[in-house]
Order: sequence, then C-alpha cells, then structure tokens
Amino acid sequence: MSDVQQGWFWKMHRGEAPQPPVAHLLGQTITRVDPVAGELDADYVAAPAFANPAGHVQGGMLGAMLDALTASVVDATLRPGERVASLNLNIAFLRPAGLGALQGKARLARRGRNVANAEAQLLQGGKVVATATAVCMLVAASNAAPAAPP
Amino acid sequence: MSDVQQGWFWKMHRGEAPQPPVAHLLGQTITRVDPVAGELDADYVAAPAFANPAGHVQGGMLGAMLDALTASVVDATLRPGERVASLNLNIAFLRPAGLGALQGKARLARRGRNVANAEAQLLQGGKVVATATAVCMLVAASNAAPAAPP
Repeated sequence: MSDVQQGWFWKMHRGEAPQPPVAHLLGQTITRVDPVAGELDADYVAAPAFANPAGHVQGGMLGAMLDALTASVVDATLRPGERVASLNLNIAFLRPAGLGALQGKARLARRGRNVANAEAQLLQGGKVVATATAVCMLVAASNAAPAAPP
Repeated sequence: MSDVQQGWFWKMHRGEAPQPPVAHLLGQTITRVDPVAGELDADYVAAPAFANPAGHVQGGMLGAMLDALTASVVDATLRPGERVASLNLNIAFLRPAGLGALQGKARLARRGRNVANAEAQLLQGGKVVATATAVCMLVAASNAAPAAPP
C-alpha cells in the first residue's frame, strides 16, 4: 500500500476513519475516486434547513458542497500527516437548485508541492447548477500553521 | 412607511415574517442594518456539524455565512416582490476559524437597477477569518426566471 493510501482520505474512504461532521451535514457520499486522473465524484443531499427565502438551496450551501468536492480531490493526494487548507473559492451560480439530491464532480487541475488548484461542478437533474475553482495550500504535519500571517 | 420597508427583509427584521431556514442553520442574528450607508452586521454560530477533518469550521460553511451577509445587505434594499439571486461569490480564507461565535459585516458597494455588488467579512476574536465579494442579480416579481438561460 502506498504512502498516499495511508493518508486520512483513503482511511476514511475504506471506512477505517469517520467522515468529518460537515460531510454528514451535507449528505455526502463519495461515489468514485480516480487518483491517477485526479477526479472525484460525490453525491449530496440538500436538507430543508439549507433553504433560502425563495425555497431554493442557499447559494452558500452549494458552495459548502463545492468546497468539500475541491478539498476532497486534493485530500486524495495527501500523504500521512499532510493536510489541505483552502485559500480561495470562487463560485458561479448558474441555476437555482431545489432541495434534495445533487451530484458533484471534482477535478484536480494542478498538484504542486505547496499549492493545488481544483475545479468542481454541482448538477441537479442533469443540469449544472453551480461551479467553483479552488486554490488550496498543502501543509506538512510539521508546518501546520494558520493559512496567513497575523 | 416606504416601499422598501414593506419588502420581505424588513418584515423579517421586524419579526413579521420568519427567517429563512438557512439563517437558523447558520445561527444568524442580524444586529445592525443601516440602509442609507448600505451596511449590515450579523452574528453567526458555527455548530459542531460544521467541522472539517481538522476540527475547524469548513471553509464552505464560512462561505454560507458570507453569502447570507452579502445577500442580506442587498435584501434590505428590495421593494415588495423583488428578490436577489447571487451570480458569483468569491471567498478568501485568511485564517482557520474555530467552532462557536463569529461576527459578520457586510457593505453594499454598488446598487444598480439590475445588479448589486456587495462585500462581507467574518471575524472571530477580533481577527478577520474570511472575506467575500458577491455579484447579485436583482429580479422583479414579474420576471422571476432562473438566473441563467438553459
């Protein structure tokens, strides 16, 4: 088993470590991971608690799903002790999303030594409802400092 | 009472209409609205369910708070029947945020006829943990179509 497969993400994916609380909140189920291609698919469930005044899923909650997608596709590349910190997430809202099931797709655009760039989209009924690009910092266990100086 | 004060936001702010479900989820309390200056402050509570694998508040959930802030400062300018749809939300993550209380500040940068630009920041312990800029579309009641063509 490779170093990467001993990392937190793969332990979670094999059921040897729990999903983080926010994954439960978002109804996340990771359905496919291809670490060679740098791709990850996950399903989400928008709960009634996510509704905005119009009764649609609040855009920010779609953003939380997109953040989970982009972070997870980077997580899948981490070695034990490494972690990822999102620095920027830029979200485009294309259509209103209704409560219920959403399908997410993430792609690793670039994985450098210290920085990773990832992209994700969320679909509902076969149509893209929101997309995002993320800039992430990779933090070694020995260097787990806050993302920015005070 | 002006037209704007008959809009949904002000009815909610006066307790005549319920807060949307997502405002409850995020523990939102709007503490100050200055419609002349285009400013709004709100407090949030990051619940344990918002935690990422590191035990911090997942960035996307901070984004949901920032989306609520930028949408609310625009909501405060709407007339009855008008609504706001976020088109883009660009989030910068400055520091990790712990579970618990966060303080938000939003500012209306520009309010046009069809488009509004808003900015927001989230603080914890007096330090800014995340900022966002939003581009919002204003939709009239008679034109309440999806945010983008199919």
